[in-house]
Amino acid sequence: MKKSVFYHAGCPVCISAEQDIIELIGANNVDIVNIGKEKNRIDEAEKAGIQSVPALVTPNGNVLHINFGASLEDVKA
Amino acid sequence: MKKSVFYHAGCPVCISAEQDIIELIGANNVDIVNIGKEKNRIDEAEKAGIQSVPALVTPNGNVLHINFGASLEDVKA
Repeated sequence: MKKSVFYHAGCPVCISAEQDIIELIGANNVDIVNIGKEKNRIDEAEKAGIQSVPALVTPNGNVLHINFGASLEDVKA
Repeated sequence: MKKSVFYHAGCPVCISAEQDIIELIGANNVDIVNIGKEKNRIDEAEKAGIQSVPALVTPNGNVLHINFGASLEDVKA
């Protein structure tokens, strides 16, 4: 199965959601990307349809925005 | 393992998220509650910390608000 991708920015809300997602779907089923550190991947996140983090892109390409940590605009700044 | 509980209100955003959650964590691992129909469970959802639907309460009690379909106030109305 194609993996999900969890994008976050290191914020407390993000870290909490990351732990929950890993427990729910398993660490082997999700790639974790910190776009606060890997800023070159912000473009990829935007193209996936992400507007805020934390967010999970499912294997079929749907975006689940989870709670609210930071807007993508804030991460770019 | 204790199940997660997915609360929704039948809105299009809810149904889409429901499908994604079922694919990600498996139908056997989540109870689905439509608080738009089961209004007697709105109180339970509020006590779990839910502010809007769709939302997932994890087995350890954390609330993941997913995308945004409707506020609980709207569902009550």
